[in-house]
Amino acid sequence: MNKLAKEESQLKFEKIQNILGKENADAAIITSSVNQYWLCGFIFDGYLYITKEREPILFVRRPSDLIDDRIITIRKPEQIPDLLKEIGLLSPKRVFIEADQLTFNAANRLQAALEMPELLNISNIIRKIRSIKSVSELNQMRECADIHSEVYKLIPSLYRKGMSDLQLQIEIEREMRLHGSIGIFRSYGENMDIFMGSMLAGNNAQSASPYDYALGGKGISPLLPLGANGTILKPGTTLMVDMAGNYKPYMDDMSRTFVIEHAPDIAYKAHSISIEIHNEVKKQAKAGLLCSDIYSIAEDIVNSNGLQKYFMGTVQQAKFIGHGVGLEINEPPVITPRSNETLESGMAFALEPKFVLPNIGAVGIENTYIVHHDGIENITKFEEELIVLN
Amino acid sequence: MNKLAKEESQLKFEKIQNILGKENADAAIITSSVNQYWLCGFIFDGYLYITKEREPILFVRRPSDLIDDRIITIRKPEQIPDLLKEIGLLSPKRVFIEADQLTFNAANRLQAALEMPELLNISNIIRKIRSIKSVSELNQMRECADIHSEVYKLIPSLYRKGMSDLQLQIEIEREMRLHGSIGIFRSYGENMDIFMGSMLAGNNAQSASPYDYALGGKGISPLLPLGANGTILKPGTTLMVDMAGNYKPYMDDMSRTFVIEHAPDIAYKAHSISIEIHNEVKKQAKAGLLCSDIYSIAEDIVNSNGLQKYFMGTVQQAKFIGHGVGLEINEPPVITPRSNETLESGMAFALEPKFVLPNIGAVGIENTYIVHHDGIENITKFEEELIVLN
Repeated sequence: MNKLAKEESQLKFEKIQNILGKENADAAIITSSVNQYWLCGFIFDGYLYITKEREPILFVRRPSDLIDDRIITIRKPEQIPDLLKEIGLLSPKRVFIEADQLTFNAANRLQAALEMPELLNISNIIRKIRSIKSVSELNQMRECADIHSEVYKLIPSLYRKGMSDLQLQIEIEREMRLHGSIGIFRSYGENMDIFMGSMLAGNNAQSASPYDYALGGKGISPLLPLGANGTILKPGTTLMVDMAGNYKPYMDDMSRTFVIEHAPDIAYKAHSISIEIHNEVKKQAKAGLLCSDIYSIAEDIVNSNGLQKYFMGTVQQAKFIGHGVGLEINEPPVITPRSNETLESGMAFALEPKFVLPNIGAVGIENTYIVHHDGIENITKFEEELIVLN
Repeated sequence: MNKLAKEESQLKFEKIQNILGKENADAAIITSSVNQYWLCGFIFDGYLYITKEREPILFVRRPSDLIDDRIITIRKPEQIPDLLKEIGLLSPKRVFIEADQLTFNAANRLQAALEMPELLNISNIIRKIRSIKSVSELNQMRECADIHSEVYKLIPSLYRKGMSDLQLQIEIEREMRLHGSIGIFRSYGENMDIFMGSMLAGNNAQSASPYDYALGGKGISPLLPLGANGTILKPGTTLMVDMAGNYKPYMDDMSRTFVIEHAPDIAYKAHSISIEIHNEVKKQAKAGLLCSDIYSIAEDIVNSNGLQKYFMGTVQQAKFIGHGVGLEINEPPVITPRSNETLESGMAFALEPKFVLPNIGAVGIENTYIVHHDGIENITKFEEELIVLN
């Protein structure tokens, strides 16, 4: 790790230590990959043990070749009390765990191993801290969005007449991987599977899905009912491309809409309303704005254009029009009508006001914005108008 | 659902109901995608509520367009007691949940919503039941393995001199997707990420990883340290291909080893020992054999050839040489020295005795076998010898 990364890691540990102090807790134990990476810059199978007073301890089961002077090798959590004793520490009485990430069984085992401390949940606290990105994290997201644009630029050249949504998606996935996509597309929460993103063509955009994403799609497997389903790309319909911006550990999110040869006026109209919402939000948003106010801006524009019944779906309508982005695709804040979250400097969020038009398809755009004290910065700088595929 | 699928679903529910009877439990609540699919043939966001006496109830949050006469629409788990009351049921007192899959927080919330019943863990029980596959499940796995072979057959034609492991992997991934791969590669357990499988070239096969897979690899992201890392495919080294057999919900698992132009004799020697292990296991294995006996067969052959220090890794050696396969890539049984599991008719397991040779790479093969009362059936019928890439 370079000096800067070490300093940044140190600052993050201090934030967790502050939480321990405030909540009068003895330790925080971090086991999720995403939070281990956020704190350490690498991941391991084991327990990242943070106390108020001293350097973190890395109780590592695997990999065996990790080099770090904070490591104590471990086989099972039951060893923790003795290993703590050896370095002069008592078993903790109040412990933060990632209660929204650790399974019920793993948490119970850890609690028993630690001689039954009181358990507190640090999952949402860390998500909130992580929602304010560092300078280097934001730079990763900007680089990621630039690569994202490079790939989207290739879409017209990957398109062939008569292709299905899935065939085009496969060619896009290949370009994504050749441009450095790491493959895995991280989302938070239970049963939130996704693979490399989503493409919605024609009426497949109306299919409801079990997941908490903005739009659905039927998918090609009953075990992953989401996104492209083999719909042939037909003239007069639209294709919404919402593929992953997963080129760095820190991600961006971007959707663009393509028209197959031509589309009815209503598609152009609704798409321009999505852009209008972005433009209005860009004018008004800055640190301090309530997320619910962003929703209101969008809602007012949608209502005054009479497009409510197409907004964020038809059969099933999403309750949010935007979300934080970072190591995971669904971070805080969430942009909903009743969100009490506020934009803060250093946050990054995706805004995705979309319309689903029966017998045409989905339209609209999604950009990722970084929040500054005096405005928001669009990092997904790519053609926003409908793009015709011929 | 067709009639056969309905009957099969019914049989599975009866198995869960038997467990409820035996353990004197009032209900089982299934929330994981994989078990919902196994039981119902589809997934949803919500609670699959199984009791001893009656048809299962599907408390569904999403999708909104699911059609099934067992559905009761729900917003949150706190509604369950009232909804049960409406159909004449009391809140359960002893409840099975998937304690190895549900998060600590979600389980606690569910428990509170249900007026604090005693919680029991059904995760491993279902895994054990699922390890015995039905006729149609095994047929899916056979079909899957056939497609897997079709794709592996293309590998020599996808190879170009000077390619990296990753470049070749991307072309294989594309072919996998064109052949119907559903993308997502399901594994069980916390922090067990993987993307479409693993390719290990040269010394990258020695890199230890934090995951509980047979071999490691450095990967291209600190958040997914596994598999291909951009190693150039160099003459005199080997490439182990262990890409996903995820063409159906039910999967197979298969590894094959490729030689870049030529390889030292020791690579051919060690590879032939892996095949010898398979042949010996094929001779002896059938329903009733202890999994630890399979391990012993392999160990004896490895030891008598003096290859222990290369077996299943060098820096970090895996403790198992095989595992069940099905909806997830790591199902029971596990083939370890001290496994007390027994092969049963209808099980499917992958056997992967592999060697990692410093400065050469990994060698060996992995096949998936179906267990019958009188033997085992290899479903991954593809060239087993080292395949030269030129």
